[in-house]
Amino acid sequence: MISQHYKEMCATPSVIRSLAVYAAERGKEIGYENVFDYSLGNPSVPVPQAFNDAIRHLLDTKTSAQAHGYSPNPGNPEVRRIVADSLNRRFGMDYKMEHIFMTSAAASAIAHALRCVTAPGDEVLTFAPFFPEYVPYINQSGAVLKVVPADTESFQINFTAFEEMLNPKVQAVLINTPNNPSGIAYSSETLKKLADVLYAKQEEYGHEIFLLSDEPYREIVFAGADAPFVSKFYDNTLCCYSWSKSLSIPGERIGYVAVNPKAKDAEMIVPMCVQISRGIGHNCPASIIQQAVGECIDLTSDLGVYETNMNILYKELTELGFSVVKPGGTFYIFPKALEEDAVAFCEKAKKYDLILVPSDSFGVKGYFRMAYCIDTEKVERSLPALREFVTKEYR
Amino acid sequence: MISQHYKEMCATPSVIRSLAVYAAERGKEIGYENVFDYSLGNPSVPVPQAFNDAIRHLLDTKTSAQAHGYSPNPGNPEVRRIVADSLNRRFGMDYKMEHIFMTSAAASAIAHALRCVTAPGDEVLTFAPFFPEYVPYINQSGAVLKVVPADTESFQINFTAFEEMLNPKVQAVLINTPNNPSGIAYSSETLKKLADVLYAKQEEYGHEIFLLSDEPYREIVFAGADAPFVSKFYDNTLCCYSWSKSLSIPGERIGYVAVNPKAKDAEMIVPMCVQISRGIGHNCPASIIQQAVGECIDLTSDLGVYETNMNILYKELTELGFSVVKPGGTFYIFPKALEEDAVAFCEKAKKYDLILVPSDSFGVKGYFRMAYCIDTEKVERSLPALREFVTKEYR
Repeated sequence: MISQHYKEMCATPSVIRSLAVYAAERGKEIGYENVFDYSLGNPSVPVPQAFNDAIRHLLDTKTSAQAHGYSPNPGNPEVRRIVADSLNRRFGMDYKMEHIFMTSAAASAIAHALRCVTAPGDEVLTFAPFFPEYVPYINQSGAVLKVVPADTESFQINFTAFEEMLNPKVQAVLINTPNNPSGIAYSSETLKKLADVLYAKQEEYGHEIFLLSDEPYREIVFAGADAPFVSKFYDNTLCCYSWSKSLSIPGERIGYVAVNPKAKDAEMIVPMCVQISRGIGHNCPASIIQQAVGECIDLTSDLGVYETNMNILYKELTELGFSVVKPGGTFYIFPKALEEDAVAFCEKAKKYDLILVPSDSFGVKGYFRMAYCIDTEKVERSLPALREFVTKEYR
Repeated sequence: MISQHYKEMCATPSVIRSLAVYAAERGKEIGYENVFDYSLGNPSVPVPQAFNDAIRHLLDTKTSAQAHGYSPNPGNPEVRRIVADSLNRRFGMDYKMEHIFMTSAAASAIAHALRCVTAPGDEVLTFAPFFPEYVPYINQSGAVLKVVPADTESFQINFTAFEEMLNPKVQAVLINTPNNPSGIAYSSETLKKLADVLYAKQEEYGHEIFLLSDEPYREIVFAGADAPFVSKFYDNTLCCYSWSKSLSIPGERIGYVAVNPKAKDAEMIVPMCVQISRGIGHNCPASIIQQAVGECIDLTSDLGVYETNMNILYKELTELGFSVVKPGGTFYIFPKALEEDAVAFCEKAKKYDLILVPSDSFGVKGYFRMAYCIDTEKVERSLPALREFVTKEYR
């Protein structure tokens, strides 16, 4: 019999996707180049040439079985070693191959990490504003997502609210830094304080609380930002990474879980991920893609355009009187709307062909997200529309 | 806290994998070419040149976003259309793009299809002998796998046992034809009878019973075999396909669910798969791999070697007095062991460097599986070892 649960889920469309569809439709009327589409977080810079060259080289030099054969369940061993070595070199960690589990990007990394450290009914805390896909990611695993209200002053962590919500049922805390949608990176001070709270609560509750660190924007950090490596601060950290944004290959679905070697049962987590894979039908990301990222381990796309775009928008938004915290990374900015109802605000913006995402689905009201992973030329062309929108609607 | 459930699962090693590890270890002692390793179902023929050429061509001609960007959630639309058209052309079906959901091979196809048509606690029936991974695939979704005893005369379906086990809690039946491990393809007569039983039981229970058809060996069918397309026989069929074996690309993790257009709520199933993806962390197979299989839709590797190997082994096994049903496809053969305890039989075979898999984990006792996806030359070299084993141990 058809599952009523999943059938009903189909009836709730994603706000972001609906806006992207609207932008595409509007583009058919006036030319997509005239729609200032800030809806989707889709990398706009090309893949590095070296990535495509790596695939060509693998096809030219490997046997069919080496290129396209089964990976062992935790992933290609050589690639796992390369990932561990790179993290150790860059962040002074002590990963071994045995701590790395290759996944189909961050969604899959979170799916595995989450099941390693929670059982159905356990609570997982995350901090607003947050990526809305965390709701199905977590609730469909059987755990229960609870959202800690935002610290809207800085978009760091609201520790007062956090400590109130901590309780013995909390088995994991999920963070995302640099953050979608705020663009903010958690500072060393924030991460130190977070670790202190978690260490104290582990002691108090008599069980581990795992920190799941979702890091797809780790390589997109702007000048002056304090954006340290999360796993340095807290032993029971599972780092969930994706190359989607750093190499502009979101469709290739490639990432990993890196288990902090100091975590409780660290040597068990990757074998547990293998068991979890069997139940949720993964069994490794694509072999040739694993090997190609291994060949490009310390490369990124030319990510500088995101900082350029951020600076243009931050300056303009500030001058227009928006209250906005300057992003430390990502390709998002998250200003306060000019009226309480962000949905109404974003609806009005459509009249000026500005596609902005209201903050409600990110777990905070009265803000909006702009995804500036678009050409700088288009960002600049959008400024007059932004000025006109603000002037006509709110002056 | 670390999940005890998954931690405990790690303690149970796979019989097949343990044998493969033994074979590799033994290979280090005597040279792997001297180990007659029939343990693993890993394609031995190379990928078609056209597949690698398709990847090169995509890299040369597509933009970065076209090659490596996000697919829409159900998969690349053009590839879904190509899959539907190919199935229609080959099997006289009426699929549209909307009925095709791209997956990370058959494991992922089954993970999605299963969750579409069962809820936790529902029963899923499969027929012995069966692929042992069905146990975690199904039980970890919350549904409950029940195994119908084998018809060891023909390895078609034991309908008497099947009808006894059917009850209103059964929401899905999972079949695999051509079959791992028996190598048998279900005949038109079997599939017709299966459909008749299911239609009658749907009527009796007042709910649909879905047929999940796991078809990774669909393109490996031998001369004279009656191996029809399952979805022709029964409306509520979800076809779960993988290119792992047909194109020798098991590491690239690519397949699909094809929803019979006549199935109940056929137009809902793919959107439901999208929702399921969010919870289990999939979100499409790799973009470049999707597009490459689209370019090679009606190609296969040169699969003839499997039939050659089967004929050599079937002749030898029969001459040695084994009771064995001649395979209609796959790269497996499933003879009766020469003693009741198949585990003891396969243990003795190791003395002759024959690596055979006892049937116990496939849900039937007293048989063994040989995976003959190895070079024909090695199959021929294994025959004296097989003869010596039988003569010394059982004559």
